[in-house]
Amino acid sequence: MEKTGPFPEARSDRLEADISRMSEFTDRSQKGWTRSAFTEVYNEGRRWLRSRMEAAGLTTRMDAAANLIGRLEGADSSLPPIVLGSHTDTVRNGGRFDGVIGVLAGIEAVRLLREHEIRLRHPLEIIDFTAEEPTDFGISTIGSKAVAGNLTAGMLELQDPDGRSLAEAIRSAGGNPEDIISARRKPGDIAAYFELHIEQGPVLEKSRKELGVVTGIVGILRLLLTVTGSPDHSGTTPMTLRRDSLAGAAEMLLHLEKLCREPADAPLVGTIGRITVSPNAPNVIAGETHLNVEIRSTDAELMEATGASFLSGCCRIAESRSLLLESRRMSFTAPVSIEERMMEIVRTACSDVSPRYAELVSGAGHDANQIAGIAPVGMIFVPSRDGRSHCPEEDTDREHIRAGTDALLRCVTALDTAEEDGS
Amino acid sequence: MEKTGPFPEARSDRLEADISRMSEFTDRSQKGWTRSAFTEVYNEGRRWLRSRMEAAGLTTRMDAAANLIGRLEGADSSLPPIVLGSHTDTVRNGGRFDGVIGVLAGIEAVRLLREHEIRLRHPLEIIDFTAEEPTDFGISTIGSKAVAGNLTAGMLELQDPDGRSLAEAIRSAGGNPEDIISARRKPGDIAAYFELHIEQGPVLEKSRKELGVVTGIVGILRLLLTVTGSPDHSGTTPMTLRRDSLAGAAEMLLHLEKLCREPADAPLVGTIGRITVSPNAPNVIAGETHLNVEIRSTDAELMEATGASFLSGCCRIAESRSLLLESRRMSFTAPVSIEERMMEIVRTACSDVSPRYAELVSGAGHDANQIAGIAPVGMIFVPSRDGRSHCPEEDTDREHIRAGTDALLRCVTALDTAEEDGS
Repeated sequence: MEKTGPFPEARSDRLEADISRMSEFTDRSQKGWTRSAFTEVYNEGRRWLRSRMEAAGLTTRMDAAANLIGRLEGADSSLPPIVLGSHTDTVRNGGRFDGVIGVLAGIEAVRLLREHEIRLRHPLEIIDFTAEEPTDFGISTIGSKAVAGNLTAGMLELQDPDGRSLAEAIRSAGGNPEDIISARRKPGDIAAYFELHIEQGPVLEKSRKELGVVTGIVGILRLLLTVTGSPDHSGTTPMTLRRDSLAGAAEMLLHLEKLCREPADAPLVGTIGRITVSPNAPNVIAGETHLNVEIRSTDAELMEATGASFLSGCCRIAESRSLLLESRRMSFTAPVSIEERMMEIVRTACSDVSPRYAELVSGAGHDANQIAGIAPVGMIFVPSRDGRSHCPEEDTDREHIRAGTDALLRCVTALDTAEEDGS
Repeated sequence: MEKTGPFPEARSDRLEADISRMSEFTDRSQKGWTRSAFTEVYNEGRRWLRSRMEAAGLTTRMDAAANLIGRLEGADSSLPPIVLGSHTDTVRNGGRFDGVIGVLAGIEAVRLLREHEIRLRHPLEIIDFTAEEPTDFGISTIGSKAVAGNLTAGMLELQDPDGRSLAEAIRSAGGNPEDIISARRKPGDIAAYFELHIEQGPVLEKSRKELGVVTGIVGILRLLLTVTGSPDHSGTTPMTLRRDSLAGAAEMLLHLEKLCREPADAPLVGTIGRITVSPNAPNVIAGETHLNVEIRSTDAELMEATGASFLSGCCRIAESRSLLLESRRMSFTAPVSIEERMMEIVRTACSDVSPRYAELVSGAGHDANQIAGIAPVGMIFVPSRDGRSHCPEEDTDREHIRAGTDALLRCVTALDTAEEDGS
């Protein structure tokens, strides 16, 4: 930083106006807010966003993965950029804050730097990553995957239910899938990445905090269990002769819940949120039950151990009920640990803004998960009202968004200075 | 009976040919056998059945509820008829035996009586009751309901998903819904009703019996539970802050199972075969779960007590998990007890045919449930292979069907004689 003095403060009115304007880009045939990636309304929102970036003094471009990038040059053109980012796509029937505030806070930070004539040494980039939420192509965090070099040729060939390939979708959003490699950044290409995001959970609100220092991002182990019994008549099959796949599945679900409750303070959750029963008729014993199982933790070993313990319990349950059990490991995403140096920057930035901050893990995945593979990352959370997200009720106090923006800007200036001290 | 001598024996080849011919009337776009009531293939099957009745010497007619009735006059025209019946509609993707054998065995019994020149005192009616299985109108046993006087005007106005009323459907099947009252029989109008049916369960097969004397037909208590929690993010909501409606529902299901297993020898079963979860996504805690609950027993008091005990347990579970619980009593069908006199007739008939018979309750509802309201009923069961029914694998040994037909005819002649002795 080239200037000292009272630290700039974000303006709530500008943030509010930008959030409000962005929320108007929504599929009005859906309840709540729906701005799915690769739709016309998504592209319209990003055209408006690009104009906001330019009005803030950023030079804009779209990379080959259709990531929208606004850049502010720094004093030292030999330095890699500090990056602030998130996304502007939403889930269907979602809210106005998830992703959006991380991008808009970045633009507000740029406005503040310019208004206070603060010149960074590093270039600063604000990135609206393409398609962070789950898509019809079966994958998510598409733009940040491309930046991290994790978007494969096979993924580009994935098709949505209408038969459109991901490559075509990226082209329609303004990208250039043939040259997807050019979107990639190598280790060293990004000085540091900071993301401001809503918590999407109840922890900060319950403890009356306004800022969260993210200490790690959980990994996810996904399993699909198929429990097979016999679809017999509910009236004519005595209790002792039943092979009820749903009753077995119920025991398995409670077993998972018990396992994940046991380590009281461990960052561990286990969920069965999707169940499919066949034939699913009131008068037929459930012949087959599918369970989608998720185990999340910041501790990869604990996650694997819990998965193994869960499956061995399920085997015992299946055996005792003469059920068949098949389990498929659908995916394993490793947890992201945040470097102590980055956590310290975020911690200091938050404590400078408010004494009401807490450390917590991120239970959801973010673009930061991808970027962590190529650059140091830091994340700031702001509270979600009632812990709700991915629904129209999603809400965050505007003062908390302002505080988060202030902390985000402090992270940038601290990193910019720290790099100077360190070199 | 006007003739003595060796008792006539049913001919397996004729029964087999009739079952085989009836199985050809099926919706070939569906797997297994599908002959839903009020479809063209159902009407075709009944036209063929009517010709078989007439070939056996029966005078046929269709009543106002579209029940197909074949009648053989008896020696004493002042007596009410003995009725043998069941149905020829199937569930979707069902089998060839459920219902069908009861009607075809009745026709075979008529052929045997005529071939052996046995003249009954009572008239004998063979009835193919309309629409015994669950229909798109939300009700079942439509034809036998009409005969018992239980088909209300409100029911006739029920609509299927295409907007067709039950009245229109009955008309399309050859009935006369405006005059539905004429299908009704009053107490005394039927001397006795006997129904031969597949067991649809595993009890006879497991105990290596070939005939079953039905001692009662279970009643059914149906409940719909709605368990409401909070549809929170599976990654960001700690285990201790969850309100997981599916986990609560799993506990409730296991509670029902335990309650129904406790009275080891009581005729009691409880089933949750249908579960609906919202939003049913792998990464969202189940916000709302619906459970369709069935409790069946031949003991009405036990059924009610089990229901009450189940619901109070569910309330405790919901409270301990901060879930909302709503329960709706969807229907209560009282159990049918079989008169000792009728059971003795069936028991004697079965023991005359084979030493391998057993007494058991019917866990499924039948047309006999309705007819029990206006006449003495008796039921004979034959084993179901692997206890399977309502599926293409439904099967019954042809020799058991023959034995069941022999027992059915013995019931008719015994009742015909008993009424003589008694009067």
